[in-house]
Amino acid sequence: MILTVTLNTALDITYRVRELRPHASHRVSEVTERPGGKGLNVARVLAALGHEVMVTGFTGGATGRVVQDQLTDTPGVLDALVPVAGATRRTIAVVDELTGDTTQLNEPGPTVTSAEWRAFQEAYESLLTGEISAVALCGSLPPGLPVGAYAGLIRTARTAGIPVLLDTSGEPLRRGVAARPDIVKPNAEELAELTGSQDPLRATQATRRRGARAVVASLGAQGLLAATPEGTWHATPPARIPGNPTGAGDSAVAGLLSGWVERLPWPDRLARAVALSAATVLSPVAGEFDRAAYEELLGRVAVTGDASAAWVSP
Amino acid sequence: MILTVTLNTALDITYRVRELRPHASHRVSEVTERPGGKGLNVARVLAALGHEVMVTGFTGGATGRVVQDQLTDTPGVLDALVPVAGATRRTIAVVDELTGDTTQLNEPGPTVTSAEWRAFQEAYESLLTGEISAVALCGSLPPGLPVGAYAGLIRTARTAGIPVLLDTSGEPLRRGVAARPDIVKPNAEELAELTGSQDPLRATQATRRRGARAVVASLGAQGLLAATPEGTWHATPPARIPGNPTGAGDSAVAGLLSGWVERLPWPDRLARAVALSAATVLSPVAGEFDRAAYEELLGRVAVTGDASAAWVSP
Repeated sequence: MILTVTLNTALDITYRVRELRPHASHRVSEVTERPGGKGLNVARVLAALGHEVMVTGFTGGATGRVVQDQLTDTPGVLDALVPVAGATRRTIAVVDELTGDTTQLNEPGPTVTSAEWRAFQEAYESLLTGEISAVALCGSLPPGLPVGAYAGLIRTARTAGIPVLLDTSGEPLRRGVAARPDIVKPNAEELAELTGSQDPLRATQATRRRGARAVVASLGAQGLLAATPEGTWHATPPARIPGNPTGAGDSAVAGLLSGWVERLPWPDRLARAVALSAATVLSPVAGEFDRAAYEELLGRVAVTGDASAAWVSP
Repeated sequence: MILTVTLNTALDITYRVRELRPHASHRVSEVTERPGGKGLNVARVLAALGHEVMVTGFTGGATGRVVQDQLTDTPGVLDALVPVAGATRRTIAVVDELTGDTTQLNEPGPTVTSAEWRAFQEAYESLLTGEISAVALCGSLPPGLPVGAYAGLIRTARTAGIPVLLDTSGEPLRRGVAARPDIVKPNAEELAELTGSQDPLRATQATRRRGARAVVASLGAQGLLAATPEGTWHATPPARIPGNPTGAGDSAVAGLLSGWVERLPWPDRLARAVALSAATVLSPVAGEFDRAAYEELLGRVAVTGDASAAWVSP
């Protein structure tokens, strides 16, 4: 069983409108809702790949109840969310029917009290039993949490002997890396912000020196660059994939985690992560992956083992 | 006790963002939520004026529960909403912090089944006891309802001997007027659409000929024009009022209703409606009225009894 942690869970709402125009009134023609926040997205992809997943993080208010109701309807996903007095945030994606362009509105999330944070830490520690094969810590921190929150959760997982992946940004990423997680998965922008280097190869190596055991950088259309104790690899999709990149990074995390707990070698983990990510971009539903495309793409991902030679700066 | 009917209740959500830009991602700095839909707004103003109000209409889903929880916390308002399987709609007002301009996103609302509509009609009829002094039918119809829905509710109220006000638009207004309501309150656009005339005085008279006993047209900064069996009046605010017009029409309806059940003469009802409407535009909170401004404005509303002379076409 894999445990994913989403401290700032969300109800992701998608609105279709003809064309968003500032200061006008719009009739929404279609409304869809689903559980959101990176860790819940990762869990949904893992479950679709046949893995058992437990999800934790915070849930509160009417939006939290909707998120939990929908999780109950997702086979393979176990709900271990912890209650909080504030309301789970909404994110609203407004899609223009004419062009497919999306405007995003993100609520900040509930302010978590120190008592609620302590209750979460206790619940998290009690979930880290022998049943859990890996932990993924995903996404932004809600208001009220200490910036070192992920660093603490990484130490707890390491103490329990459970491997841990971190996917966040900014200062929580910086503090998290110093707590020595097994994998971090920054994108190009997060990596540059963390290390000050625009060169992904140098930046991944610098991130390892700061404490991460392995670094897998997601570089959009250029695939994944992995710096690990076993070697350095660059995995690229067979072609430029048109579509909606929402959730592609979360699918990559799910690919890495599933390959990890199945003890696949690094090149196979990376190929799976790149194929899942590309199949998510291709899917007509944002954040879902197209299974046929995934299986077709899997054999066509190129993985080169000498990243320093294979990597051409953009 | 006044009964207000809101067939398409809403949870009105307001987001503050720095500046809404299409196809960009925005952090929402502030989220506020309150019960919405015209009849619920009218009820809140009536309650603030010291009237007892009962609200009915449909409620469903997680958003419906939030609306009902907030109504429970509103003194003077009794909740008689009828459950529906679909979810109560959200409306989202995105306010630019820089300019105060607002972009509106309105969900369509739940599709109401014919069984749910029958259940509502029975509940409505059972509410029309001697305790109810007036009924207000307010706002748009949710998907699934017959276009003559308001016409039927007007006939039921008339059969029960209870005076009824209608505030809606388009075909539901046209059908409603033919069912002979005591008052209709169209705005200039609704009036022109109904009658084909851009001249408010002619259009209000034409609307009376179509079946409405009295017509009170809301003409924005030019106040209210009333054509009634007792005479024709034009009521205007003392000055052009700067601010947010959201809810000004609902406050005007609350003013008319409260003056009606208190048996005030028409000029006093109209003065109250104009002052409440202007005090709503002035209020910093959309849809609330500024009580001090209302009391100050009340004595300064000009009501002229010879509307055909006093009315100057814009």
